[in-house]
Amino acid sequence: MADQSTALPLTRESVQAAHKLIEPYIHKTPVLTNATLNRLASTPRTEAELEGTEWAGRAPAKPVLRFWFKCENFQKIGAFKARGAFHAIERLKQEPGWAERGGRERGVVTHSSGNHAQALSLAALTSSIPAHIIMPSTSSPAKIAATRSYGAHITFSGPTAPEREAVTSQILSQTNAAFIPPYDHPYIILGQGTAALELLSQTPTPLDAIITPCGGGGLLSGTALACEGTRTLVFGAEPSLDGADDCRRGLLSHARVETVPAARTIADGLRTPVGKIPWSIIHDRGLVRAVYAVSEDEIRKAMRLVWERMKIVVEPSAVVGLAAALYNEEFRAMVERDGGKAGWDLGVVFSGGNVSLEMMGKLFAEE
Amino acid sequence: MADQSTALPLTRESVQAAHKLIEPYIHKTPVLTNATLNRLASTPRTEAELEGTEWAGRAPAKPVLRFWFKCENFQKIGAFKARGAFHAIERLKQEPGWAERGGRERGVVTHSSGNHAQALSLAALTSSIPAHIIMPSTSSPAKIAATRSYGAHITFSGPTAPEREAVTSQILSQTNAAFIPPYDHPYIILGQGTAALELLSQTPTPLDAIITPCGGGGLLSGTALACEGTRTLVFGAEPSLDGADDCRRGLLSHARVETVPAARTIADGLRTPVGKIPWSIIHDRGLVRAVYAVSEDEIRKAMRLVWERMKIVVEPSAVVGLAAALYNEEFRAMVERDGGKAGWDLGVVFSGGNVSLEMMGKLFAEE
Repeated sequence: MADQSTALPLTRESVQAAHKLIEPYIHKTPVLTNATLNRLASTPRTEAELEGTEWAGRAPAKPVLRFWFKCENFQKIGAFKARGAFHAIERLKQEPGWAERGGRERGVVTHSSGNHAQALSLAALTSSIPAHIIMPSTSSPAKIAATRSYGAHITFSGPTAPEREAVTSQILSQTNAAFIPPYDHPYIILGQGTAALELLSQTPTPLDAIITPCGGGGLLSGTALACEGTRTLVFGAEPSLDGADDCRRGLLSHARVETVPAARTIADGLRTPVGKIPWSIIHDRGLVRAVYAVSEDEIRKAMRLVWERMKIVVEPSAVVGLAAALYNEEFRAMVERDGGKAGWDLGVVFSGGNVSLEMMGKLFAEE
Repeated sequence: MADQSTALPLTRESVQAAHKLIEPYIHKTPVLTNATLNRLASTPRTEAELEGTEWAGRAPAKPVLRFWFKCENFQKIGAFKARGAFHAIERLKQEPGWAERGGRERGVVTHSSGNHAQALSLAALTSSIPAHIIMPSTSSPAKIAATRSYGAHITFSGPTAPEREAVTSQILSQTNAAFIPPYDHPYIILGQGTAALELLSQTPTPLDAIITPCGGGGLLSGTALACEGTRTLVFGAEPSLDGADDCRRGLLSHARVETVPAARTIADGLRTPVGKIPWSIIHDRGLVRAVYAVSEDEIRKAMRLVWERMKIVVEPSAVVGLAAALYNEEFRAMVERDGGKAGWDLGVVFSGGNVSLEMMGKLFAEE
């Protein structure tokens, strides 16, 4: 583990400092708007649409919503994860004694089958530092090839957490490299928060709120730090299938849910439970107002709308925030109450665009 | 037919005038770049890649290419066709005696199953003018619904040209409306040319060339007019399957190919032969330097690259220009000869993004 004692405090100022550090390496991604999606979100759902949901028989909410989509699908490696990874590498390089202890040659280690593996590999490669990635042997050939294309050293493990951790420990003791986990680390959280920091500066009008997906919680807690002390509220969104809405459930019971066994949601980036440090920001410090859950069908419908109306490629995990704004009546009723006739300007973080054509075919063949 | 005697001359100045007229109604679409696609295009193909093509055994070309993608997939109705349609409606409204003869009540007529139907319907609706659309009864329910959503009056015809023309004549005599064909009309051509006009003004460096798809030739001939008198060369691209490369073949034999029977290319917007007025610009006036053909597999490969690397949704017809730049050795050898070490800045018009998720699934399931 990188030495956390040297990490910056978890504050908005630290997110600003992170942004300065990584600016030369990342894309300042565009913020898009879409009149059709605003109109759809600002139209009350029909009673027929609410049939068969938990809101059946209730009067549909009447929110007014104007979306500001932060397009991290256009970020390097196709996801916001590049932000945290570049930040971790830049901070490592600044740690006192890191270079002297041979840090540059020892490199970095992580376990990930997805966007974090590619992000850390690219960031390490950019600084000519070796990256050791532990991937489940069940990872798709496309993901293995993508990670390898960034020059990473890949070691395979069994798919379970104990198997993964055993291999990770082994590689760590072999290499003495710095461990950079996918979300439960201050460097990562502060880096991910820079997406919201940019978003806040890219809209002509102040945002009433920002909603982001929540898996391990790096993006959501970083966003919460970026918005601390501003008038912008922060919300999370999760898939409900198989209890993947662990953060939402944890907030209700004031106890972090530590495991989510065998979540099968199509939002594959959001299957993990919230990490300890993200939880301390989201729950203990109260910087996230609430988290909302959406169904698989709602995720698919939101993806189709983004595809057809915005003509951009987003992965299933990326649209859970939009799905909550379109289909979650609790969220919508809150916007109606709080925003009134003027409504809300809502920032929505599209977290990534790494979905294969084959996966898309499968997702929409099932409809 | 709208009275062509009142149409502006087919010149760059008329494209500029068209742009002024339609600016309030259309999106100024963004111009994107992509370092990975530049690198790919600037890497010689391997001899193995040329095996089995007409260039097998020849030394691969070594062009240097920097792409500037004009994203008409983000245009209203998802395609450049909105430009020509809005221009036609605005010009009609200015025709002497049009309103006095009841033109506004009579409206407009066209036959199209695709983007032109939606574009003309939207443009007519925007000016509160009725639009009568003749669609083949075999059109997909999604396209029928989309056209209807713009308030158009739809009449179905049999799928053959004589059946379509019979129904069109009947509707024309019933309504006395103005006929606005999909490409073979000065208003349409001048409107389509505005995409290239914008593109020329959106790059920091002058473009060496622009390449666009070529179906009926409205976009290609409009682009040629927009570039006349500038230093920017104009090229077209077509699918080769079933002889859909009619413009390319016509240029070689100096005779317009008038029919393309039963073209099945996945680039469904490019199945039609080039129209008479586009041909007079492309061939007779010599304003298009050459047209290149690409295979179905090359179209699919280019779509996949745009999907994976740029994270944007484009329809098969939209990527034939990119496919030519990546895979057509004649085009690539020409860029090598003409551009030398400095290479070319090449404008590539992505003409539209109207491809359904179901169609994408089918296209890539076949691989």
